[in-house]
Amino acid sequence: MTENFDIIIIGAGPGGYRAAELAAKAGRKVAIFDDGDVGGTCLNVGCIPTKCYVHSATFEEARERMAQVVAQLRSGVEHILSHPNITLIRAHAAFVDAHTVCAQSSPLPAGTADGAPAEGTGDTFTAPHIIIATGSETKYIPVEDLDDARVVDSTGLLQLSVLPRRLCIIGAGVIGMEFASVFNRFGSEVTVIEYLKECLPALDSDIAKRLRKCMEKQGITFRMKTAVQRLADIDADVILMATGRKPRTVGLHPEAAGITLAPNGAIPVNDNLQVISLTSSLSPLTSPPSSLTSHLSSLTSLYAIGDVNGRQMLAHAAEAQAKEVVEHIVNSTEAVANTPPTSSLSPLTSHPSPLTIMPAAIFTSPEAACVGMSEDQLKAEGVAYECRKAFHRANGKALAMNETEGMLKLFSEPGAGRILGCHAFGAHSADLVQEASVLMCCGATVMQLRHMVHIHPTLSELLLAAAES
Amino acid sequence: MTENFDIIIIGAGPGGYRAAELAAKAGRKVAIFDDGDVGGTCLNVGCIPTKCYVHSATFEEARERMAQVVAQLRSGVEHILSHPNITLIRAHAAFVDAHTVCAQSSPLPAGTADGAPAEGTGDTFTAPHIIIATGSETKYIPVEDLDDARVVDSTGLLQLSVLPRRLCIIGAGVIGMEFASVFNRFGSEVTVIEYLKECLPALDSDIAKRLRKCMEKQGITFRMKTAVQRLADIDADVILMATGRKPRTVGLHPEAAGITLAPNGAIPVNDNLQVISLTSSLSPLTSPPSSLTSHLSSLTSLYAIGDVNGRQMLAHAAEAQAKEVVEHIVNSTEAVANTPPTSSLSPLTSHPSPLTIMPAAIFTSPEAACVGMSEDQLKAEGVAYECRKAFHRANGKALAMNETEGMLKLFSEPGAGRILGCHAFGAHSADLVQEASVLMCCGATVMQLRHMVHIHPTLSELLLAAAES
Repeated sequence: MTENFDIIIIGAGPGGYRAAELAAKAGRKVAIFDDGDVGGTCLNVGCIPTKCYVHSATFEEARERMAQVVAQLRSGVEHILSHPNITLIRAHAAFVDAHTVCAQSSPLPAGTADGAPAEGTGDTFTAPHIIIATGSETKYIPVEDLDDARVVDSTGLLQLSVLPRRLCIIGAGVIGMEFASVFNRFGSEVTVIEYLKECLPALDSDIAKRLRKCMEKQGITFRMKTAVQRLADIDADVILMATGRKPRTVGLHPEAAGITLAPNGAIPVNDNLQVISLTSSLSPLTSPPSSLTSHLSSLTSLYAIGDVNGRQMLAHAAEAQAKEVVEHIVNSTEAVANTPPTSSLSPLTSHPSPLTIMPAAIFTSPEAACVGMSEDQLKAEGVAYECRKAFHRANGKALAMNETEGMLKLFSEPGAGRILGCHAFGAHSADLVQEASVLMCCGATVMQLRHMVHIHPTLSELLLAAAES
Repeated sequence: MTENFDIIIIGAGPGGYRAAELAAKAGRKVAIFDDGDVGGTCLNVGCIPTKCYVHSATFEEARERMAQVVAQLRSGVEHILSHPNITLIRAHAAFVDAHTVCAQSSPLPAGTADGAPAEGTGDTFTAPHIIIATGSETKYIPVEDLDDARVVDSTGLLQLSVLPRRLCIIGAGVIGMEFASVFNRFGSEVTVIEYLKECLPALDSDIAKRLRKCMEKQGITFRMKTAVQRLADIDADVILMATGRKPRTVGLHPEAAGITLAPNGAIPVNDNLQVISLTSSLSPLTSPPSSLTSHLSSLTSLYAIGDVNGRQMLAHAAEAQAKEVVEHIVNSTEAVANTPPTSSLSPLTSHPSPLTIMPAAIFTSPEAACVGMSEDQLKAEGVAYECRKAFHRANGKALAMNETEGMLKLFSEPGAGRILGCHAFGAHSADLVQEASVLMCCGATVMQLRHMVHIHPTLSELLLAAAES
């Protein structure tokens, strides 16, 4: 049986369910596939569960709270997906061609060890537009004894029912640092092993180093510039593999839709988040022109959003991309029907695309956050800039809260011009960076920021203090 | 002895010390008077000490933390005032004329019960510009037994060394509500008596009511629409008088400078924060013209900032006003010297003056905050508006933090236009309102806000959720 839809969405994480919600509201008939729990990595085994750990006093409380919160939010997503224009298909989706997917019980059906689509075993679904939002999965480093029974990824760590006495974390990225903070607080003996010189490479290295020193003072051991050769040499009860994540396309059969994956496994996209063909296997010399045209036009019907496109592996990036893509599809299909594009979805004019201003936060203790360029990037790219700083220890609210560890760096064009970036660690960093982020979206200058009143006593005064320094 | 300065500042609170700092940096010779501790009410007995109480687990911890934090911040202010261009005079200042003040040991010297200046007992100081930043003091309601030994104001409450078993708070404004929250948490039995129908009149009444209900659930008793006749009838160990504050001008002798106080005791100012004469006692018919001219021109040399001008009784309002006034003085005196105004201090162009966008927060538990108009004000003034809401209980971070009580209201021009106000209660309300506040300073619309990425999972997503609702 074949069913026809306006839009097919593969994956019901923050990118997928948001796209489904917006497309359904715009009157489109949507099919959305997921063979796991709706809500994706973020809700089920990512941001939300870890934040329950961050905000719990004990390991036991964390586990209990996590179960409740995830269930509650998941039911919220299920409610969103119960919209009459949305069909939720609790199955794996594999491409048949650029407009068709086939529903399967699993990415790797029985009898097809290579993951090739079990043709004819499921219903097929067609749509003029397909949005791929399959997310990402844990990336492991190549060590020979990866089958060490102590190894878990972040999902596995959240399933532990007993607090590990000694936890070794491989990788000092966001996942590694957040879990280091949490399990250290719960009482585990935590060691972090990192290949690079500094943690959190997206963060300004000055901020990152100060945060790491702060966490060292809390009792976490860091072994930087250290390569792991053999897991057997690691003295720990549990080993968390936090060496990054990679785009998830297992069993998706992108090649059936004419998609060639990038070397890192991502589905390459253009600025409209439409899938592009990196190296076409169809040469104009050997294939008939009509076939080539058909191949290229088919790619414009395909979009990839969220972790799978490898751009920014952040839930809110996926969500923002979902908005852009649904807007693009709705506007393009309305244009075909000779109606003007919906002005209600028009982005900010005369400012950079919102997708280029992408704040992020790391919920260590204390937390860290960043938006825009770091001092390292500004130097590397030879951009002229001014750097202003403010410190939590000089902020009245931080003192009153007894949260005096922290620092904010504000980068701008020379002459107190437009804000180029803001990187911070310390209490409420995420909120401070969020404020800097919307100021960047407005194209505001440091000069203008100086004249914007900030509530006393709050941590937001740090941003003002930096602007005035 | 008479000393000459460029600027005399009376009062070393957030308005005064900030004005001194900025004027000194601009090369002006400044004298600043304070007969108490520098830092004013805010630092010594206001915002900062109460925030230490808010963020302490016990009454004992609060008292200890308060002493440390206040000492540390006060030494910071003393450092600011140690600038070579600044002379700190630890004395009371009384006007002699519009360009001259006299230093006194107290506002009410011995032998002058009526507070008249003890002429000749102190040195005099003159300057072409004088900034009055004397702050405010507790306003008491007229009850006959105000001498009841149980009565304290906020300053007195912070001096208690024993936690009161039963605390009665008269007045459900900011001070009353913050202390109600804090002492309820410490274990006192708290009753709040309020004359009006709802608490926190500046806050949207819907938000205020929800916050009050939330505090009632925590065990605080509210007696609304209740007038206090006799304190003797109140069954409590301590009675906090939190019925507002009034401008402080005791012993200042503003009349000597030609200043007539407003009926509420405030020093009236124009939009440049220059003192204006409400009802001149000098009639043009009975006084020589030259005398009148002299009288009027003298007032343009006088400024009043902060609580004493009765505009917004907020530390950050005083600080913002200090910036405006110093800019005004510096620009006007540079203009006299035929130099162009300093562009480095120019405010935002084509947007409302920053002083009209004045956010405020109330650090109850949970906290509340507001900027711009409430729904009550919009209705009363007949302004066309849209109201959008978001709830903490639907926010992932709030769930993870177990802080699900809260709500945000966002008001805008119709058609998702410019933001007119944002009122909220719940975790991180101050930061959310701060973000709305800078968006208002930028003249941003709700439509634009929808396209600004917000970090997941954070409470800032509430503002985005409201914009999208």
